[in-house]
Amino acid sequence: MAPAKDLTHFLSEESKRRQPSPLKTAFKYFGQPDLIFLGGGLPLSDYFPFNKITVESPAPPFENGIGYAPKEGEAITKTEVLKQKIEDFDVPLSRSLQYGHTGGQPEFLKFVKEHTELFHKPPYDDWDVLATVGNTQAWDAVLRTFCNEGDSILVEQYTFPSSMEAAKSQAVKFIPIPVDAEGILPEKLDEQLAKLEKSQLPKLLYTIPTGHNPTGSSLNKERKQAIYKLSQKYDFLIIEDEPYYFLQMETYTPDASKRDNAPKGKEEFVNALEPSFLSMDVDGRVLRLDSLSKVLAPGTRIGWIVGQPALLMKFFRLHEVSIQNPCGFSSSIVTGLLSRWGNDGYLNWLMGLRAEYTIKRDVAIDAIAASFPKEIIEYVPPVAGMFFTVFIDAARHPKFSTEFDSDPLKVENAIFESSMKKGALMIPGSWFEIAHSFPEKALSNEVDSKIFFRGTYAAVPLDQLKLGLERFGSALKEEFGL
Amino acid sequence: MAPAKDLTHFLSEESKRRQPSPLKTAFKYFGQPDLIFLGGGLPLSDYFPFNKITVESPAPPFENGIGYAPKEGEAITKTEVLKQKIEDFDVPLSRSLQYGHTGGQPEFLKFVKEHTELFHKPPYDDWDVLATVGNTQAWDAVLRTFCNEGDSILVEQYTFPSSMEAAKSQAVKFIPIPVDAEGILPEKLDEQLAKLEKSQLPKLLYTIPTGHNPTGSSLNKERKQAIYKLSQKYDFLIIEDEPYYFLQMETYTPDASKRDNAPKGKEEFVNALEPSFLSMDVDGRVLRLDSLSKVLAPGTRIGWIVGQPALLMKFFRLHEVSIQNPCGFSSSIVTGLLSRWGNDGYLNWLMGLRAEYTIKRDVAIDAIAASFPKEIIEYVPPVAGMFFTVFIDAARHPKFSTEFDSDPLKVENAIFESSMKKGALMIPGSWFEIAHSFPEKALSNEVDSKIFFRGTYAAVPLDQLKLGLERFGSALKEEFGL
Repeated sequence: MAPAKDLTHFLSEESKRRQPSPLKTAFKYFGQPDLIFLGGGLPLSDYFPFNKITVESPAPPFENGIGYAPKEGEAITKTEVLKQKIEDFDVPLSRSLQYGHTGGQPEFLKFVKEHTELFHKPPYDDWDVLATVGNTQAWDAVLRTFCNEGDSILVEQYTFPSSMEAAKSQAVKFIPIPVDAEGILPEKLDEQLAKLEKSQLPKLLYTIPTGHNPTGSSLNKERKQAIYKLSQKYDFLIIEDEPYYFLQMETYTPDASKRDNAPKGKEEFVNALEPSFLSMDVDGRVLRLDSLSKVLAPGTRIGWIVGQPALLMKFFRLHEVSIQNPCGFSSSIVTGLLSRWGNDGYLNWLMGLRAEYTIKRDVAIDAIAASFPKEIIEYVPPVAGMFFTVFIDAARHPKFSTEFDSDPLKVENAIFESSMKKGALMIPGSWFEIAHSFPEKALSNEVDSKIFFRGTYAAVPLDQLKLGLERFGSALKEEFGL
Repeated sequence: MAPAKDLTHFLSEESKRRQPSPLKTAFKYFGQPDLIFLGGGLPLSDYFPFNKITVESPAPPFENGIGYAPKEGEAITKTEVLKQKIEDFDVPLSRSLQYGHTGGQPEFLKFVKEHTELFHKPPYDDWDVLATVGNTQAWDAVLRTFCNEGDSILVEQYTFPSSMEAAKSQAVKFIPIPVDAEGILPEKLDEQLAKLEKSQLPKLLYTIPTGHNPTGSSLNKERKQAIYKLSQKYDFLIIEDEPYYFLQMETYTPDASKRDNAPKGKEEFVNALEPSFLSMDVDGRVLRLDSLSKVLAPGTRIGWIVGQPALLMKFFRLHEVSIQNPCGFSSSIVTGLLSRWGNDGYLNWLMGLRAEYTIKRDVAIDAIAASFPKEIIEYVPPVAGMFFTVFIDAARHPKFSTEFDSDPLKVENAIFESSMKKGALMIPGSWFEIAHSFPEKALSNEVDSKIFFRGTYAAVPLDQLKLGLERFGSALKEEFGL
């Protein structure tokens, strides 16, 4: 394998201006034998009023499901962290609660590197990892590190609004890419890029490849390979925002009696996962944003970026003067738990997660099939993530060409209001649409009459999920007089 | 009391562009009775593998000092947090580890508001607080929220390099303010501002008013009042970065037998603290950055900003698309501990902290008095913080006008190297100096022969501190042939 290509020409002006502080260079002497270091304002860890932290967690192999809370006397995983190190794999509190380790605690990074090697095997030889406080912050850091005001980025036509809000406030422009039920259409992307002047070419592609938010789509290997080739042809970075990677599941089978196709073992589970952009990244032009928010809990606020060292170093410099490092409690607790589970127990957890989300997805799709008016809707059962979308032909609404002036958005709004009255909320698709800010109308902005709503099967218990979808279905039937 | 003044004219272009995401507006319906909310991608808290967290901490009143680790059987404060709420003041894990509460968990904010009222009593009626992940991040957020490229800010002539590194990378310009041993000189600041064109006026003053890093100086009430008046006269914000506020201590008394002037009770302790800029802020033009890094531990990565709501809202919008919120473990653990201690027990902790740092400071100053060559040095014993500075007259170096070309920096470097050889490291003052980026040479840049070194008494045990200073003193004596 070769090292990563030099891609420092993508750096933003801000990032280029960033220098290590001279003060930080003093720390190279820290810990030198027989040197009394009066340099750094580090409080003594004797004064940290946290002597011992104990965390109770479920224990592998999670036979009763990952949502099962162990009862008194049943097996648990007990993570105990002290100020001083006892277990080799633990991050002691005297270190995690101290300043330092901007890039992440070594024990955490070790686990994450092994995990990355296991699932992605990046095909260049100097890839590395760097801790973040989650993908939202990591994406903000990506923008700061690469984009100047007026730079443009590629984004899926519908995408996660918070990510776009971050970009918009930094005056970054969007080039929306047409998508279908399986995500980005590589040929359309190529056509789109071919039309641009050199100065208009995007610096990066922002994509949620797995269990896309909001569309629920997932990019398969062939599309990813085609898109990766385009990133080389037109020279842009690929930012893969991957919170839902481990919420991949079986293909939906309408006949419930035939639903027994889950991976039978760990190897089969690992092999069943779609290959990531990172796994095909020979150049080092992918930055993979990994998160524990959907796998353990959002409030852990610890995640990581995988990428090439020269680019990661610029994130390090930004983090030094902003977030510093992930919370020490989280570093100690998350590392402590994952290390006690081991990569093997963690695989059990991930397989359990897949099983839970498969059931949820099935209940949602079953309910849609049973109670939505088939004549006017289309949907593709998702194979990953938390979201599903239902497309609706607005032109079929009885008031479409009269009261609603042939405006699909008016139909969308009417459906939203009716379903709210019935007691069910799904999010109107237009809330996720990217305005064509740049280049104006370069995409053929086909106005068709299709609208969509996004729902999630993640957040409510199964009975509520079914009832909510029945309500939404009945609102649709009423609106369309079906 | 009146509400805060409208100061939104200070907002940066980035901050003005920031809008709430339409998706977030859907959350106003969240929790509405009989509405099944299929809107948000929130994982079920049943799947968070953290069922119970127990933290052992020392218990008030900390009779053996705050550094004492309780032995088996001795009183401790035990913080237990579960997924569901048991104690009113706790942040349950089902909430702290979930998405949401960008501004901070309500129980944390309640404690912090009471604390702010107790110590600062801000004199306008709509002040509020907002959680951060520490002052480094809060300062980065201040820059994003108020400064455009090319804007200028006021900073102390010597200041914390990381803060300046953040500003420099954002192409913000510095106007350095002359300081003496007690900090900013208000008359010099006035003179300085009077010389500027309207377009050159700074948007804000960045200051570390208490236990300044690096100089160790602390602004007294009179200087603060004068500076506050200037902020009204020239219309700028005051950012008070206050990690060391509770490391205030007694005035140094050279005669160790007379060192018995610590506050005798809680009221006396509270009254002995210098009033903050916030305590005199009738306009709502102060943003106070508060941190637990030096009070509990740096790795808590939870702090807060006190300020007026219209400005705090812009931080909220930035945090939504970057850090989201402080780590859930930290929110639960820190709030759990502080609430169990109560504001009263916390006062005991703070008084204990004052006592410890007073001893450390005394040992440092005693060692300097005993082993540094008096003929060439000057110092003012700090009354707050972790740092002390020793000024040295470089011109007194035997090689000053010969080998060193009358360049004080060459003397600084020679001392650094000699002291490193002796096994003691203090940081050369030039590492903290602000370059005059704007306006060029507006300040009379008096080149005198004074240099300084910054040391800390925070980070090493007392015997090491004494030995380290003896080594530095002996290096000075050798260099200067004394």
